[in-house]
Amino acid sequence: MKTAFAQRRRALQRLLAAERVGSLVVTQPANWYYLTGFTGEAGALVVSRRGVALITDGRFVAQARTETSGVRIVQQTGSLAASVGQFLKSAGGGKVGFDASQITVGQFRVLRKTAGGRARWIAAAGYVERLRRRKEAQEIAQMRKAAILAGQVLEDALKMLKPGVRELEIAAEIEYQMRMRGASGPAFETIVAFGERSAYPHARATAKRLRKNELVVLDLGAILAHYCSDITRTVVVGRAPARIRRWHRAVQEAQSAAIDTVHVGVPCGEVDAAARRVLAGYRLDRYFVHSTGHGLGLEVHEDPRVAKAQKQTLEPGNVITIEPGVYVPDVGGIRIEDDVAVHAERTEVLTRVPRDLIEI
Amino acid sequence: MKTAFAQRRRALQRLLAAERVGSLVVTQPANWYYLTGFTGEAGALVVSRRGVALITDGRFVAQARTETSGVRIVQQTGSLAASVGQFLKSAGGGKVGFDASQITVGQFRVLRKTAGGRARWIAAAGYVERLRRRKEAQEIAQMRKAAILAGQVLEDALKMLKPGVRELEIAAEIEYQMRMRGASGPAFETIVAFGERSAYPHARATAKRLRKNELVVLDLGAILAHYCSDITRTVVVGRAPARIRRWHRAVQEAQSAAIDTVHVGVPCGEVDAAARRVLAGYRLDRYFVHSTGHGLGLEVHEDPRVAKAQKQTLEPGNVITIEPGVYVPDVGGIRIEDDVAVHAERTEVLTRVPRDLIEI
Repeated sequence: MKTAFAQRRRALQRLLAAERVGSLVVTQPANWYYLTGFTGEAGALVVSRRGVALITDGRFVAQARTETSGVRIVQQTGSLAASVGQFLKSAGGGKVGFDASQITVGQFRVLRKTAGGRARWIAAAGYVERLRRRKEAQEIAQMRKAAILAGQVLEDALKMLKPGVRELEIAAEIEYQMRMRGASGPAFETIVAFGERSAYPHARATAKRLRKNELVVLDLGAILAHYCSDITRTVVVGRAPARIRRWHRAVQEAQSAAIDTVHVGVPCGEVDAAARRVLAGYRLDRYFVHSTGHGLGLEVHEDPRVAKAQKQTLEPGNVITIEPGVYVPDVGGIRIEDDVAVHAERTEVLTRVPRDLIEI
Repeated sequence: MKTAFAQRRRALQRLLAAERVGSLVVTQPANWYYLTGFTGEAGALVVSRRGVALITDGRFVAQARTETSGVRIVQQTGSLAASVGQFLKSAGGGKVGFDASQITVGQFRVLRKTAGGRARWIAAAGYVERLRRRKEAQEIAQMRKAAILAGQVLEDALKMLKPGVRELEIAAEIEYQMRMRGASGPAFETIVAFGERSAYPHARATAKRLRKNELVVLDLGAILAHYCSDITRTVVVGRAPARIRRWHRAVQEAQSAAIDTVHVGVPCGEVDAAARRVLAGYRLDRYFVHSTGHGLGLEVHEDPRVAKAQKQTLEPGNVITIEPGVYVPDVGGIRIEDDVAVHAERTEVLTRVPRDLIEI
């Protein structure tokens, strides 16, 4: 792995040289990990042609020394922004790239002041994200494992669904099972929504108890060796009424249409449109209140976005979710979500759980 | 509770009027919850003399309508920043406060552009945080429950510590038990560190197995009805060597000295200094690489900070952690942490677990 980190740093340095950026301030934890293997919670990485320095506070210095190789570790004095600014000043200034979507207005003020007048600041987001978007074979192999793990946990959780059980208990069991299977934890707060609460796309698990014939949405993901998975299934504990069956069929068809649209070179907006078109055919498109999917990797939401009018085209190595849904206020919601890897010649669905409506 | 939310909004509106801020853009999820009860994951609140509006995307609109009362819900079109900007423009501009430690450089550009020239922007952080710092009696009652719950889970986890067990298993069990006792989840990633790994103050649980006579640091917190707890204990599974006993005694004395310093009117820096002084007496102060504590509430890190030279004085209703530690690279670390509520006439330790070195 140490070689992979060094290779990624070199790829970034080439990108910076091509764009004539002298130094890049990397402030996003997933980006540090991707470039160095550092798993600490606070710090900033400064990547320049001359080398790579990690500035972090006392809590993480020993850890940074153990986890990284070929990276200079600098212990922060005062605020992080001031330490990064001072480091840049001592490095001689020049054109400094920063991520305007990560650095706050307050941090930027301190950075500019401490780095001094010789630094020229340019908003330069997305360099590391651009590299991260195209997963290496070893990354996809890891994501496949994370996706299979999430599917197994989901199938186990379905067996616990019985009238009387609480949303919170199911969520607790799901996250416990993930960890017992080797995950470092959930990729996001596990969603368990019963009955009307399934109409909230991002419902938090509550003390609500399951009643017979209610809808159940389970949306969960595991982090396995740093990589995320994300899967959703909707089931009925009892008998599904006709309209629920129809909604489920619509969402399932929308998801299939979107997955079938996934190919190298296709704009992400077309994948989104494919799902929306099917739901429009069922006159359910106005109940589909979010986008069709998102990139997945070290973060649970990353590039590319699979949303309306997104022009970004799919590339080999992209991993995205496909997760259309319909949400009818005061009645309930249905969502089906899988993780999909884009290869040069084929599309691979990483999550392996049947999609048909399950009545338990 | 709806009354409490409305009262807090009125208190904020009075504060804004006193400071002549026309509108405040509130971008921090814990702040939205504090003011409205909204638990969605994305959005922004605009508080002005005329009223309070919550701008959020399609995923959270139905949820916002159910969870809040007396708040106008506005569905976002386009990016959040653009929607907030347009809302402010239609509201007529004026002096607009924003939190420079929350809003990114990129968001601020869009906000300024869409809100138009009639808005005058001022960095105005901390209004809501200032209210949140002084917990109401009902908030402290809730935090007491969260602290007791965390202590119970910790004591249960100690019973699982046997040679051969893995860090990840203990972390999984801890988070499972929290939820089964009613917590909505952990307040942060549970820290379970065995042996040399205890020398990392923020170690993530790994697959490492416990060996006899190793140190174990457990640092965990639960979120119960939105409020956080945070507790740490260090134990030895087997017999502790003399130097470990000495380090533990030093940390325990440092913690007691810091807790004894907690009184209304005392600057937070003095509480930190009390812990450091004890460790210096043991010549261990250079191994104490972080600050003595932090405020606790809806967030696991909030005001006030209990760190070197902090001039902020303690007020009735503050809840803080007191958590000195020593971390000796390649050997191990010791930390003891409790949650403390500051009352007008007394100090209340909310966490209720013995602090003496436990040998299991």
